[in-house]
Amino acid sequence: MELLDEVRAGIRPLDAAAVAAARARLDLMTKPRGSLGTLEDLSAQLAGLAGECPPPVPGPATVAVFAADHGVHARGVTPWPQEVTAQMVANFLAGGAVVNAFAAQAGADVVVIDVGVAADLPPAPGLLARKVARGTADFLAGPALAPGQVEEALATGIGVARDLVAAGSNCLITGDMGIANTTASAALVCAFTGRDPAEMTGRGTGIDDSTHARKIEVVRAGLDRHQPDPADPAAVLAAFGGLEHAALAGFILGAAEQRVPVILDGVIAGAAALAAVALAPDAVAACIAGHRSVEPGHAATLGALGLHPLVDLGLRLGEGTGALLALPIVQSAARALHDVATFDSAGVTDKGE
Amino acid sequence: MELLDEVRAGIRPLDAAAVAAARARLDLMTKPRGSLGTLEDLSAQLAGLAGECPPPVPGPATVAVFAADHGVHARGVTPWPQEVTAQMVANFLAGGAVVNAFAAQAGADVVVIDVGVAADLPPAPGLLARKVARGTADFLAGPALAPGQVEEALATGIGVARDLVAAGSNCLITGDMGIANTTASAALVCAFTGRDPAEMTGRGTGIDDSTHARKIEVVRAGLDRHQPDPADPAAVLAAFGGLEHAALAGFILGAAEQRVPVILDGVIAGAAALAAVALAPDAVAACIAGHRSVEPGHAATLGALGLHPLVDLGLRLGEGTGALLALPIVQSAARALHDVATFDSAGVTDKGE
Repeated sequence: MELLDEVRAGIRPLDAAAVAAARARLDLMTKPRGSLGTLEDLSAQLAGLAGECPPPVPGPATVAVFAADHGVHARGVTPWPQEVTAQMVANFLAGGAVVNAFAAQAGADVVVIDVGVAADLPPAPGLLARKVARGTADFLAGPALAPGQVEEALATGIGVARDLVAAGSNCLITGDMGIANTTASAALVCAFTGRDPAEMTGRGTGIDDSTHARKIEVVRAGLDRHQPDPADPAAVLAAFGGLEHAALAGFILGAAEQRVPVILDGVIAGAAALAAVALAPDAVAACIAGHRSVEPGHAATLGALGLHPLVDLGLRLGEGTGALLALPIVQSAARALHDVATFDSAGVTDKGE
Repeated sequence: MELLDEVRAGIRPLDAAAVAAARARLDLMTKPRGSLGTLEDLSAQLAGLAGECPPPVPGPATVAVFAADHGVHARGVTPWPQEVTAQMVANFLAGGAVVNAFAAQAGADVVVIDVGVAADLPPAPGLLARKVARGTADFLAGPALAPGQVEEALATGIGVARDLVAAGSNCLITGDMGIANTTASAALVCAFTGRDPAEMTGRGTGIDDSTHARKIEVVRAGLDRHQPDPADPAAVLAAFGGLEHAALAGFILGAAEQRVPVILDGVIAGAAALAAVALAPDAVAACIAGHRSVEPGHAATLGALGLHPLVDLGLRLGEGTGALLALPIVQSAARALHDVATFDSAGVTDKGE
C-alpha cells in the first residue's frame, strides 16, 4: 500500500531541540519549577511535535466521528439494536448528541465519516460518505475484513486527517460510533497487549452480567480462532475490525505525519492507536490521551502506549466526548509557553535553585 | 457580625426539584444512562444550585486572586522571600502569570484583591485595594489575626463575590497568592479535620527535606499552642490566618448566597472551604472541586468536603490555575442539559431499561 508506506516514512519522533527549548522555558517561567505537573510534559510534547517553542496553540480543532457497524453484533454482545448506529449518525448531523454539545462548548467542529454503517445514509452537510462496507463480518465466523478493506479504511482515515489539516485544523480529535465496537476493541487490545479477555472486556454502554460473560467468551473465541500476531497490525485489524478502528488508525497516522496533535477519546481510539503505533511507532509522538474511560481495556491500552489521561471522570460514552473535555487543557498547555513571563522579565525573585 | 449572619441565613441546599429534573433529563438524553460518569452529578448540582433545569451555562467567569502575606514566613518554612507575593501581584496585573494565560484561554476575567500583602501596592486596573493588615502575625507567637480582622476579611470576600455577581459573573473561581500560605493551610486543615500535621503538611512550591521537617513542626507547634476548636471557625481563622483564607471563606459563602457555582482551586481554597462550610454547612452546594493538587492536605480536605476533583494533573501552583483548567468541564456539564436531544426527539431507539 503505497499511501501507507508514504505516511509511515513521514512520521518522525518529537523534535528534541524544541522539547529542550520548552523544558528550559518552563523552568524560567514565573512559577515554581515543575509546579504544572504533567501539564509540563504536555507543553514539551506540543513543542516537540510542532518543532518550535512556543508551539501553536492547538485550534481550530475538529472532532472526526468515524461510524461503522460490526458483524459480531449478531452474537448478542449488546442490548442496543444495530440501527442505533445510523440513528446516532443522524443525531450527530442534527447537532443533538453529547459530542455536539461538548464540541460547541469547546469551539471544535464536528465531522462524521460513514466508513461502514450498515444502512444507506442520505447525503447531509457534515457527513463524509466513505463507506468501505456495510459493517464488518462476524469475527467468529471468519475475518471481520478483507485485507483490501483494511487498506481502504486506513487510507480513508489518512485522507480525512490530511484534508482537515489542509483546511486549517491544527488539532484533531478522535470520535467514534458503532454499536458493538467495544467488543472489537477488546479483541484488538488483547491482540496487541497479550492481556486476557476477562480483564480487557468491559460493559461498554452498560450491559448485564450474562451479556458481559457472553461478550468475554466471544472475544476469547475470536482470539482463539484468529491467533493474531501483534507484529502484523493489518492482519489484526482484518481479523477483528472494525472499519472505524482501521480508519482511526489511519487518522492517527495522518495526524502524526502532519505534525498536529491528535487527542484520543476512549477505548475505541485507544485500540486504534495500538494499531497505528504498531504500524509506525513514532506516531505516539502526536497522541494525547484525552481521558480514561471506565472500560477496563482502556487503562491497559494507555499503559501500553505510555500515555497519561488528562481527564478521568468515569465517562463511557465515546463519540469523542472525553477527548473534547480535554481540548481546553491541551490548549492551555501550549498557551502557557506563549504568555507567561520569566522571572527576569517580570522582576520576580527566583528562589535560586 | 451582621453581614455574616445575613449571608449564612441566605444559604440553602440544592433545590431538590431541579436536581430531580436534571437526573430525569440525563436519563432521557441520547446516550447510555450514566455514561457521563461523575459529570452527571455535576450537571445535577448546577441545576440544583440554579434552581432550574437546564441551569445557565456558567460564564462569564471571574477568577478572584486573593493575595496576602504570612507572619509564619519568619519561621523558615519556604525558600521564597516574602516580597515575591507583591512581585507576583504585579505579574498578575501585567498579565504575565500562569493564571493569566489559563484565564485568557478559558475566557475568564482576572481580578486581584490585596487583602493583606506586606507591601504598599500602587493602584492599578484589576487590583482591588482591600488590605486588612500588612500580613498576619506569626502564629507561633500568638494569634495570626485579631477577631476583627477575621471579620473584615470575611466581609471582604463576601463583598467581592456579591460585586462580581452583580457585575454579571455567574461563575466564580478561587485564586490565591501568598508566600508561606501552604503552612497556614496545613494548620487549618489539621484544625478542621483533626488529622496529623505530618500527614497534612506538604512541600508547597517545592522544598527540601529539612525545610519540610521544620514546616511540619511549625504546624504542630501552632496546633499545640492554639488548641483550635473546629466548631468555632472564626477562632480557627484567627489562630492561623491567613487573610486570604478568611477572605476566600467569605467569597465561597458569597457565591453560595448568590447561588452561583464557585470552582475551588487547590489546598488554600480547600482550607478556606472547610472554614466556610463550618460557618454554613449548605455552602458546599455551591462548591466544585476544580482539581486535586499534590499537597497531601488537599485530598483529605476534598474528602472532608465530600467533593471529587475534576482535574488531577499533579499541579501545585495555586493562583487559581487548577480551577481554571476545570472551567470548560463545568460549562460542558451544563451545556449538555441544554443541547442534547432525547431518544424520543431524535428518533433514536432506546434499549429500554
